[in-house]
Amino acid sequence: MDLPRSPLAQPFPDLPAIEGVIPRVARARYKEWDRCDLTVIEFAEGTAVAGLFTKSACASPEVDSGRAQIGSGRARALVVNAGNSNAFTGAAGREAVEQIQAHVAEGLGCAAHHVFVSSTGVIGVPLPKDKARAGVAAALEAEPCDWLEVTRAIGTTDTFEKGARTSAFIGDTRVELIGIIKGSGMIAPDMATMLGYIVTDAAVEPALLQELLSAANGASFGSITVDSDTSTSDTVLAFATGAAGNEPLTGHESPGCDAFASALRDLCDQLARLVVRDGEGATKFIEVRVSGAASDDSAHRVAMSIANSPLVKTAIAGEDANWGRVVMAVGKAGEPADRDRLAIRFGGVEVAREGRAVEEFDETPVARHLQGDEIIVGADLGIGDGSARVYTCDLTHGYISINADYRS
Amino acid sequence: MDLPRSPLAQPFPDLPAIEGVIPRVARARYKEWDRCDLTVIEFAEGTAVAGLFTKSACASPEVDSGRAQIGSGRARALVVNAGNSNAFTGAAGREAVEQIQAHVAEGLGCAAHHVFVSSTGVIGVPLPKDKARAGVAAALEAEPCDWLEVTRAIGTTDTFEKGARTSAFIGDTRVELIGIIKGSGMIAPDMATMLGYIVTDAAVEPALLQELLSAANGASFGSITVDSDTSTSDTVLAFATGAAGNEPLTGHESPGCDAFASALRDLCDQLARLVVRDGEGATKFIEVRVSGAASDDSAHRVAMSIANSPLVKTAIAGEDANWGRVVMAVGKAGEPADRDRLAIRFGGVEVAREGRAVEEFDETPVARHLQGDEIIVGADLGIGDGSARVYTCDLTHGYISINADYRS
Repeated sequence: MDLPRSPLAQPFPDLPAIEGVIPRVARARYKEWDRCDLTVIEFAEGTAVAGLFTKSACASPEVDSGRAQIGSGRARALVVNAGNSNAFTGAAGREAVEQIQAHVAEGLGCAAHHVFVSSTGVIGVPLPKDKARAGVAAALEAEPCDWLEVTRAIGTTDTFEKGARTSAFIGDTRVELIGIIKGSGMIAPDMATMLGYIVTDAAVEPALLQELLSAANGASFGSITVDSDTSTSDTVLAFATGAAGNEPLTGHESPGCDAFASALRDLCDQLARLVVRDGEGATKFIEVRVSGAASDDSAHRVAMSIANSPLVKTAIAGEDANWGRVVMAVGKAGEPADRDRLAIRFGGVEVAREGRAVEEFDETPVARHLQGDEIIVGADLGIGDGSARVYTCDLTHGYISINADYRS
Repeated sequence: MDLPRSPLAQPFPDLPAIEGVIPRVARARYKEWDRCDLTVIEFAEGTAVAGLFTKSACASPEVDSGRAQIGSGRARALVVNAGNSNAFTGAAGREAVEQIQAHVAEGLGCAAHHVFVSSTGVIGVPLPKDKARAGVAAALEAEPCDWLEVTRAIGTTDTFEKGARTSAFIGDTRVELIGIIKGSGMIAPDMATMLGYIVTDAAVEPALLQELLSAANGASFGSITVDSDTSTSDTVLAFATGAAGNEPLTGHESPGCDAFASALRDLCDQLARLVVRDGEGATKFIEVRVSGAASDDSAHRVAMSIANSPLVKTAIAGEDANWGRVVMAVGKAGEPADRDRLAIRFGGVEVAREGRAVEEFDETPVARHLQGDEIIVGADLGIGDGSARVYTCDLTHGYISINADYRS
């Protein structure tokens, strides 16, 4: 299936090399294709690592392993396999992961538990060990490559390469942060797990890196939805080499910690938005803003209820200011709400207020807003101070075509 | 929008008149159409009533009123308006409901709080009082009609009339139970709220009727989903006239209570299935069976996670035995599950077992099953005794066409 490039695609940014990081790619040929599909990224000794993993109860062996490894706080390598997720493959899948870890550990002269592995692709087929072995061997001997090549090698059904960069000053030291990500549904037919990798040359203690990454997650990766489905393999890893030479960040009181945390949050936000922009069949990027809720958590659940509603998503696909569907989605969220205080906005225009339609509202700017490709849906619950913002995309014939018309 | 008849439609059954019940319909012309859209059903004095209402926090004034009325346990009339849901209309909507209740109460010589009102249709437009007044006046003077005419009059985007019947013996007295229902999504563009009405000539005390109806709800109306969206107006009411002359059922120990409860459960199950069979864009009826869960409630949540998954629903639309998507949906449910004990079935064939694909399974019967229009998806979690069964339909281009391509 050759998918057209998303109309919401953005150009791949110019991502700098990060000191202490050597990416390489190779052809393992996990599928019948002629492209690099195995990535090995080598990190300098002492690189700190932090991670976020799927909440799925049926996670892949890569995720099981990653969860167990992350506690050590140190990484020497990352391996990404594209074309086979190795999920739901029993003992054979676990063995494939262990073989890759041992192979890379031997090649780089490091501990196997410092080698992280991710896989994305078809579920239920054990990752073929022979292809993995040949691919890892080829990657270990390959010339280093750039981030665009890595992003292509980790992609599956992605229709464009997704990367982002930012920087921060820690004291007088400028540190770089770059990120790449793949994914176009929460999961999809054979593929489309979300895998994101963040790399920085900053020196950050692992425990703090984990804390900052977890804090950034809620408003970024935790606030996007394409189709409400959750992959068995979703993973975000952040690696900090320390090569920039800044005074290491050890806690919130470390000078520059706020700047670094802010940059990391910004990077996660950029990456999360890119995944939604490549959402299967997406033609419009939708930001759902909920305010006036009982709490921020409550606002988040209401926002996700709106963002996951097939009727809201199809209305926006049809450029229809159908605020009744937004009311419905607020009502079904199971959160505190008062029908007679609720207000709904499209773009900047309030279309419903205090439990009924705003009779005099001007439809022209609403129609113009809905014809664009970046839509803002606002709901103010009018009962508290809680707020949240989530990103999603519209639901179109393209989604059905990708997921029903083609067979795996 | 003229929708084609659902390929899953079933013929309307021959529903008997119920003693003590007089249905009448009229043209209120809530929309630009030439059809009956206002129903008044008169019940004999002493008729018991029980009800189920939407859990939406943004319910319609009809639902607010119904919740307040149901406690009295008695009903003399039901009014159903089709074409305007009167939801999210503030004080004007409340006044319209009160006007209808006063009008019918005067016409029938009963208390206003014994007149139940339901409305279905566009959200956000107050029910026009002048049309309601003229429509009620016409209905009160109309000739009695049959259940098929009533079912047509309460319908909106429904593509076929949905009714069911059953009967039971209470002692030596045979009692009839009939039901009619409308709805084709949990909610839809302008319409498609689920409204269901059950009428019986059995004599049943209101408190027991409510208990039996609530008990029947979980496995029927509480176990269907078309698109995971919940209407602001969903209502099911059960009326028992007592005209059959049986020894009144007053509690579980009353002779015949079990038989009546069983018949009621069967009727609710039939009606719930019919709503799914008219699901927007549906081409396949899907029964999701979950077993081996930690509890029945847990099994229900896992089953709903599978039934609401766009990826599972599109896979079935594509006749694709994509069990990986079922694993994904089990994993994301947030319920206890053990990947390595999970088994997945399509029809009668196990395709995955103990955390991996069944290598030797025969694909022929699976493919044949998926080509049919009644699909069974089974998931055994292998960790307990909890089980559940829910009904849903596939997700197709038809759903997108109905909800995105046409404008409200």
